[in-house]
Amino acid sequence: MPLFTDLARSLPATVPFVGPETIERRTGVRFKARLGANESVFGPSPLVLEAMAAAARQSWAYGDPEHYDLKQAIAAHHGIGIENVAVGEGIDGLLGHLVHLACDPGDRVVTSRGAYPTFNYHVAGHGAVLDFVPYRGDDHEDIDALLVRAKAVRPKLLYFANPDNPTGSWHDANAVERLIAETPEETILVLDEAYGDLAPASAMPPITLMRPNLLRFRTFSKAYGMAGVRVAYAVGEPETVAQFDKVRNHFGVSRMAQAGAVAALADQAYLEATVAKIIAARSQLAAIATRLGLRPLPSATNFVAIDCGGDGVRARAILDGVLRRGVFIRMPGVAPLDRMIRVTVGTEADMALLETALEAALDEVGAPQAA
Amino acid sequence: MPLFTDLARSLPATVPFVGPETIERRTGVRFKARLGANESVFGPSPLVLEAMAAAARQSWAYGDPEHYDLKQAIAAHHGIGIENVAVGEGIDGLLGHLVHLACDPGDRVVTSRGAYPTFNYHVAGHGAVLDFVPYRGDDHEDIDALLVRAKAVRPKLLYFANPDNPTGSWHDANAVERLIAETPEETILVLDEAYGDLAPASAMPPITLMRPNLLRFRTFSKAYGMAGVRVAYAVGEPETVAQFDKVRNHFGVSRMAQAGAVAALADQAYLEATVAKIIAARSQLAAIATRLGLRPLPSATNFVAIDCGGDGVRARAILDGVLRRGVFIRMPGVAPLDRMIRVTVGTEADMALLETALEAALDEVGAPQAA
Repeated sequence: MPLFTDLARSLPATVPFVGPETIERRTGVRFKARLGANESVFGPSPLVLEAMAAAARQSWAYGDPEHYDLKQAIAAHHGIGIENVAVGEGIDGLLGHLVHLACDPGDRVVTSRGAYPTFNYHVAGHGAVLDFVPYRGDDHEDIDALLVRAKAVRPKLLYFANPDNPTGSWHDANAVERLIAETPEETILVLDEAYGDLAPASAMPPITLMRPNLLRFRTFSKAYGMAGVRVAYAVGEPETVAQFDKVRNHFGVSRMAQAGAVAALADQAYLEATVAKIIAARSQLAAIATRLGLRPLPSATNFVAIDCGGDGVRARAILDGVLRRGVFIRMPGVAPLDRMIRVTVGTEADMALLETALEAALDEVGAPQAA
Repeated sequence: MPLFTDLARSLPATVPFVGPETIERRTGVRFKARLGANESVFGPSPLVLEAMAAAARQSWAYGDPEHYDLKQAIAAHHGIGIENVAVGEGIDGLLGHLVHLACDPGDRVVTSRGAYPTFNYHVAGHGAVLDFVPYRGDDHEDIDALLVRAKAVRPKLLYFANPDNPTGSWHDANAVERLIAETPEETILVLDEAYGDLAPASAMPPITLMRPNLLRFRTFSKAYGMAGVRVAYAVGEPETVAQFDKVRNHFGVSRMAQAGAVAALADQAYLEATVAKIIAARSQLAAIATRLGLRPLPSATNFVAIDCGGDGVRARAILDGVLRRGVFIRMPGVAPLDRMIRVTVGTEADMALLETALEAALDEVGAPQAA
């Protein structure tokens, strides 16, 4: 008799996103700029650091397993009830629990081909079956096609990110509201709004729009600058949100993470100033790409997907050239999105390093074949 | 069609351990001493706080999803290979992943009746079936009976804590080695050594003793004083340890947790000094119980289980009296262990508060019926 389940034995031991630390260890390159993981180089509010320092001194004690203060702060921030909020160790942690709660082996799950790999990892980890819908020709997730597929296969979960990673694209709120309204009743719409704080207001349906089959995911990892802290939340109807209490790791969100997130919400002025910096850096990054003869995609996030004008082999060669020059970036893993590289916005110094590295990499790779 | 699986719908939304914050909110009592969660009031090394403060300033970036530096430090500390180590968000997080990897719905799992509730929570969360073996009459886990049951039902997992929570009891290394040797080959022995740093050396089999069906769990939450930080690890053979990479939340362990744990391992002098303080406080706590006419159980942990000389109703009344007086303690939930209260060791001030509260609670409750 084997020690692990048939499913576990069928799965690869993997890391959905190889960290820059691993690339450094493998290649010997030491990264001078870290622009691959859509972190915020502008960091969190100083008040967050203060709150985390105070919490560190109390971290001999477990954090509150019910995240009461943080859920209160989130609820007040959004004008919703505490019973509409679940907190977890990043959106990744919450997604793992959601798949556990919703999917038996063999159940269907619909997402876009090339969308968030860690969601797919958790779906596979529970033996559910992924059904991929292509992105539209304009590199947006295809709401119409997702709905057609969802109505045909009646999946347990339908994943949709707005704004989207890895393309940076977004849909207007009314299009997302149509997706919410038309998702089959027995399908949970997994609305990943990790980059929601960076999107134009017109892209975001009101957070008070709730359905039993809708969960919206927000994080402190992106605009709030706290990726390494691990804290995110889901918003939904009370009955839906309460499911997380059946399987979650109750003490998994650290005392520092809870205190830091409360402080982050309290400093909206810092968030606004950071978003302005990110938007300015995004324009600068797009201008660099354009100057180098590449096509930056419009973005409502803290990164820019840059079409390298060729196929995945060409983009991979450009990516490798940039990495070798000490700038950490990433690229989508699946065609046709893999003709792009994906660059997170950085400081002035980061952007200068990127420009130099990208220019040299492009010189090395040469012009696209039949561009 | 329901949104969640039959299993999920059958589970209660629960918290395996209600936090002291929740009790405070429910009762209005403000705890003056926090002696219920087996945390270390002595806290972590100052070097840990320094390392976490430095990591906090870098926490705009994700932590290393492969935990390379921490796994190196753990491996060096124990004289084992990095491939023998998996890191997670507390032992609780690792236990959840292990049940996911090992158990299909309906699979059997053996543990002791009254042992760690969070393990049971994860077993239930994956639809596996718990099989309980009573503690011995002397309030130790019953190795002989566990082996008889394991050989009869061939469970996927056999849980054993050494030292044990909630009794504080321990077995000698040779007894544990017999359990390891005789556990059926198709059963994974879940050897929870959360309190191992506090146990006499004679209780701990060498960490280099490995089997494909053995996983040993260690944590920074107890002797290292970092409960609120969330970091722990599993030790085992490479093939066994590698399974965690199939389902874990790769970025779940925060940058501060990883840096703090590395610093904690590097300051063994602090650990030794803390362990000495805990052992002294344990004797003091036992003396308090004895003076008040109760029976403290011998303990190899940072808490003392105190037999209140009656049944669960009596112990619950004493517990309530202590809580009401502002001292947070807990008690086992299941008979016959529920005749005890469980008190974590504290500072001199904490112990004085506990003594006063316990004495008053005992006066209120009166002598046991037919003691």
